[in-house]
Parts: sequence; structure tokens; C-alpha cells
Amino acid sequence: MTRKYQVAVVGATGMVGQKMIEVLLERNFPFAGLKLLASARSAAQKIKAGGVEYKVEEATARSFEGVDFAFFSVGEAISKELAPDAARRGAVVIDNSNAFRMDEGVPLVVPEVNPDAVFDHRGIIANPNCSTIQMVLALKPLHDAAGLKRVVAATYQAVSGAGKEAVDELEEQCRAYLAGQEGPAERIPHYGAPRCYQLAFNAVPQIDVFVEDGYCKEETKMVHESRKIMGLPDLALTATTVRIPVANGHAIALNVELDRALAPEEARQVLAATPGVIVMDDPADPYLYPTPLQVSGRDEIFIGRIRPDHTVPHGLNLWVVADNIRKGAATNSIQIAELLIESMSQGDGESRGR
Amino acid sequence: MTRKYQVAVVGATGMVGQKMIEVLLERNFPFAGLKLLASARSAAQKIKAGGVEYKVEEATARSFEGVDFAFFSVGEAISKELAPDAARRGAVVIDNSNAFRMDEGVPLVVPEVNPDAVFDHRGIIANPNCSTIQMVLALKPLHDAAGLKRVVAATYQAVSGAGKEAVDELEEQCRAYLAGQEGPAERIPHYGAPRCYQLAFNAVPQIDVFVEDGYCKEETKMVHESRKIMGLPDLALTATTVRIPVANGHAIALNVELDRALAPEEARQVLAATPGVIVMDDPADPYLYPTPLQVSGRDEIFIGRIRPDHTVPHGLNLWVVADNIRKGAATNSIQIAELLIESMSQGDGESRGR
Repeated sequence: MTRKYQVAVVGATGMVGQKMIEVLLERNFPFAGLKLLASARSAAQKIKAGGVEYKVEEATARSFEGVDFAFFSVGEAISKELAPDAARRGAVVIDNSNAFRMDEGVPLVVPEVNPDAVFDHRGIIANPNCSTIQMVLALKPLHDAAGLKRVVAATYQAVSGAGKEAVDELEEQCRAYLAGQEGPAERIPHYGAPRCYQLAFNAVPQIDVFVEDGYCKEETKMVHESRKIMGLPDLALTATTVRIPVANGHAIALNVELDRALAPEEARQVLAATPGVIVMDDPADPYLYPTPLQVSGRDEIFIGRIRPDHTVPHGLNLWVVADNIRKGAATNSIQIAELLIESMSQGDGESRGR
Repeated sequence: MTRKYQVAVVGATGMVGQKMIEVLLERNFPFAGLKLLASARSAAQKIKAGGVEYKVEEATARSFEGVDFAFFSVGEAISKELAPDAARRGAVVIDNSNAFRMDEGVPLVVPEVNPDAVFDHRGIIANPNCSTIQMVLALKPLHDAAGLKRVVAATYQAVSGAGKEAVDELEEQCRAYLAGQEGPAERIPHYGAPRCYQLAFNAVPQIDVFVEDGYCKEETKMVHESRKIMGLPDLALTATTVRIPVANGHAIALNVELDRALAPEEARQVLAATPGVIVMDDPADPYLYPTPLQVSGRDEIFIGRIRPDHTVPHGLNLWVVADNIRKGAATNSIQIAELLIESMSQGDGESRGR
């Protein structure tokens, strides 16, 4: 009989937490028990999942007693506080925040890209930033085929990445705009920002706080996380990250300079052969390409508009779209746990990392 | 006494035509008479402008008898048919379509960038594509200061560039979406396209038809027009053009590789000293940057997020926003006429080009 696991979802009432529960059920994740945890504020809420009603409990260090997998999707501060406790109690933490991603000894994993990294964990595995996940899924196969020389990325990011309140605010702003009024604007670029901007019918070129050299953190995350995931510490990558009035689904315009020639047709083949990637691109049908609305709800990343860039010796332009809440967060986290389970069932019954 | 001119606006009932009338009045353009022309379908409509009611007339070759300046904002086919007639009758045509832009003997003018080109006309002057105008206003000063080596552009374009019906459709789609329904989708990427996409809460990576090598025409326009306007026939520039659910105001994420070093602070100075450009960027106040909603209604182009790109020797990233209907179309056209008028009043009373 297949072993079943005790699973906790931390941040269960949030947008990603809710999606995690949904994806766990969809994928028949082998859980024996499911513990839904959240902040004291959200505790005692009832959540129905798979025909069962769960009561949300307040997440404390002791919540993780007996837990095998703890999927965290909470703010960095709470992850930093609780994830080590959970790991000490024997749980494998898969954390969706920025808290541990760049820590040595914490694997940062996209299962299709660097599955082996997962086994080096010491109790905590980090789930990468949403934009990074979909970008590296496109970049890694290109790198393997022809070597990445330089990448310029411009993102078109959905508001779901900023949480439920931001999605609600966008809808409110749209309603107000259509009525000739002004809606609330408190969530973009982020809650508590010194200036906030309306997102409806607008584009806001900032995601997360500013960090260094005029870059916002989403941009530096894309740089540092891609380097770690792909094992390319010197990868030349620069990004501009922009929030647009889309509810769900991130898109990225990627300009890629390669070391060796790779024709668009070859790039299509290489990408189409990559697990988790769907090429939606056909020179005979140029109006076919992915858009956020189309791919919302899907677990794959979708690539279109693959074409040569003749301004450099081996250049390509491409357009990469994915559901940022599924593959960019919930699904990727759960795939990480599935990798561990698979290795345990094939191996000695223990996760190699402990 | 200052001379006054007979002016015709062709396509007067369209989005850009309407804005042209508005801008002519705003700028006190010295017109003695204003003729509003449109297709037979729109003729006989009444338009009130500056307290005067005008009856829209059908545009025919004979409409241009006695006209000094004819501002065209109609489809390529109608421009091709009527602009030469207008020029033969002595009018200076300033055409906003793609019909003549790349023709030798037709100046393609952004007054702040290549004003002198305007005098070489033979009756027709072309107004560049909206994205091109705002992009070259940012690129030319950087080129003059440090030499452009390569440019990668990703656009975030408003639906007003696709016309009034497309703006209406976006609003209808938003209303439908908020009501949990599906709206009409016939205008994006363009009317009559083999596949159309909903734009509300979406991003569509195609503007205009596909032309060559997997590029859509907006992308190739940005390349070819910039080269012509800046007099850099070999400029290495590649673009991805994307329509986003914004009513008005285009944004561009520009990655620029220069021949010589130019620090962000120097770039800010150079750009701030350029007529028609407003730098909205301050390292001490990073949350300050332009967005489409803010700049809609303005005639300048706005530049923010100026920062170094260390992946190349002399790299910069910047964010360029402008009102695509004003500076991208109507205002730029009228500024072209003003250039000619200014030279006539300073010179021999004749446009140098005729």
C-alpha cells in the first residue's frame, strides 16, 4: 500500500493557499490528513474541500507536530518565524515566500528544471517567484540547446500575484471607471506604499519594493533566482516588471541572445519537448499565441511568438504565459512534494535530504 | 498681420481626427477656415468645435481645392487615394497612416527629433507610428550623448490606438466580465482578424497584421521608422508589441545598449533637457514614475525607471509613457504644420519644400 502523508497548508485562507488545497485534491495528493492553518485573524473559518469541512486553525510552532509536508504561502516574516519550527518537528516545508529562496542549504526548485536540487534540503525547500518559474521553464531548454548569453525580460503581470484584496480592488476600480468615478487605490504597487496607483486601465512599472540601483525586488528576484535554479551564477539577465490590469496569468516578453545558432523552428522543437511546456506557435497560423485569459487555470507554461532577433548573432524573441497562482505558486509547490514522495517510494523509504 | 491658413481634417469623425480638431483649437493654430472631411458614411454629421458647428463633408479629390494644410487620419487605402490629389491641389498633407512613411521623398517627422526633414517634402509629410514617436523621443538624446548600439523594446499599448470601436469594445468586455459574462471580441488584434481575443483582463501580443519572420507590423514599423527618423539606417532595434487593457496611453520598456558610458544621472539630465520630454524619475523618490493614466491628456513624453543594466558594458533600462492619441498622432501632426508655418514666417513666405 502506498504511504499517505500528513499535510498542512499554512496561509490556507489566502489566494495561493486556497489554490494549494484545490490542487492537492485535483492531483490526488496522497494525504492522510489535511491541516489548514492561518493567522489568528483567519482562524476558526470553515473551508470545505473535497466534500470535507475543515476548521482553520491558528498556525503556531506546535501545529506542525506529526506533519510530513507543510506548504507555506504566507508573508516572509511568518515564514521566517514558523518554517524552522516546522522543519525541526520533522515536516518538510515547501515555502512560497521570499524568506529562504537565496539561502545556501535551501533548494530553490522548479521540478522540470532542477529536480535533483530538491534532495539537498535540510527541512526547507523554497518555491521560486512566479515570474521566475515560468521564465526558467522557457530559458533552461534554450540554454541546454544553444547556451544563454544574455536575456532581457519585460513582464506583464496579473494582480492575483498581489493577493485577493488587490484582485478585488482592481474589480472595484473597473466598476468605478465604467461609472465615471474613481475607485480605491491602496494595493498597487503594494499595500502601504508611499504612493499607490490605480491599476484599472493602467500599467504600473513596479512590483514589490525597491531594492538597489533603481530596481524593484521582483526584478532582482528574477535575476538571482534564475541563476540559482539554472546553476548559472553569472547569467546576464535584466528585467522590467510591470503590473497590468489582468486578474490572473503572467506574461513575459523574452529577448534571448544565445551562444550558438538556434533557428526558431529548432527552438520550437526543443521547447515542445520540455515537460510542462506547451508551444502555442505556428508560422502557418500566426494569430495563434497564448494570452493570460486563455492559460489561466492551466498548469503548463505556454510559449508563442517565437521569432529570430537579427540584431545579435543568435537572437530570439518569445512570449511566455502561465497561470501565476497555479504553476507560479501552488502547483509548483505540490510538484516539489511529489518529487520527494516519488524518490521515497523508489528509494529507501526516506527522503534523501534528511 | 500673421497669415492664416485653410485647414482640412480628413477622418474628422475618428478618434484621432476628433483629437486633431481639439488640438488645433487648443494651440490656436492659425486657421482661417476648417473643413471637416470623412467617408461618405460619416458625411453630414455635425461636429461642434470652438463654438462653431461644422457639417462633415465627404472627402473627395475636389475637397482640397484651396486647402493649405490637410491633416489625414484615415486608413492607408484612403490616404493613398486622396493624399496625392490633395498635394496636387497645393495642400501640404500631413498623413497619420502607414501609407507613405517609408517612401523616399516623404519626410517622416518628429519635430523635436528631425525638424529639418520637414522641409524636404513634395506635398506629403508622414506622421510616424505612435509607439515610434515616443520611443525616438527617448532614444535620440541618448544616441546623441553616447551612441545607440542596440535597443530591445517591449510595448504596453492602449486600445485607443485601435480606434473608437475598440475602446468601446474593451469597456463592454469589462462590463460583461464584472457581471460574470462574456463580451464581444471582434476588434483585437484587429477588425477582421482570423482569430480575435478578448482584451479586458488580458494581454494580446499582436498589433497590426503579421508581415515577415514572425513579426507583426507594429514591430517592424518601430524598427524601420526609427531608423529613418533618426537617420540611423543600421540601428539594431528589436520590438515586441503588446496590447493591454488600457484605454489611452502607451508605455514602452526600453533596454538600451550604448557605445559609450552614460550614467543614469547623466541620462536623466540629457533627457530632461530634451524639448517635449519630461523626466519623472528620482532616486530619492523611487515610487515616482509615469503611468498611462497619469499622462493621458498630455503632449510630452514621460520617462521614468532610468537605471543601469550591468549585463552589457553601457546599458540602461527605462520606461517611456505618452498619450498615443495626442503626441503619438494628433499633436505631432499639428506640430509638423507649425514647423512649416514658422519657417515660412521667418523665411521667404514659401515653404522651403515646394
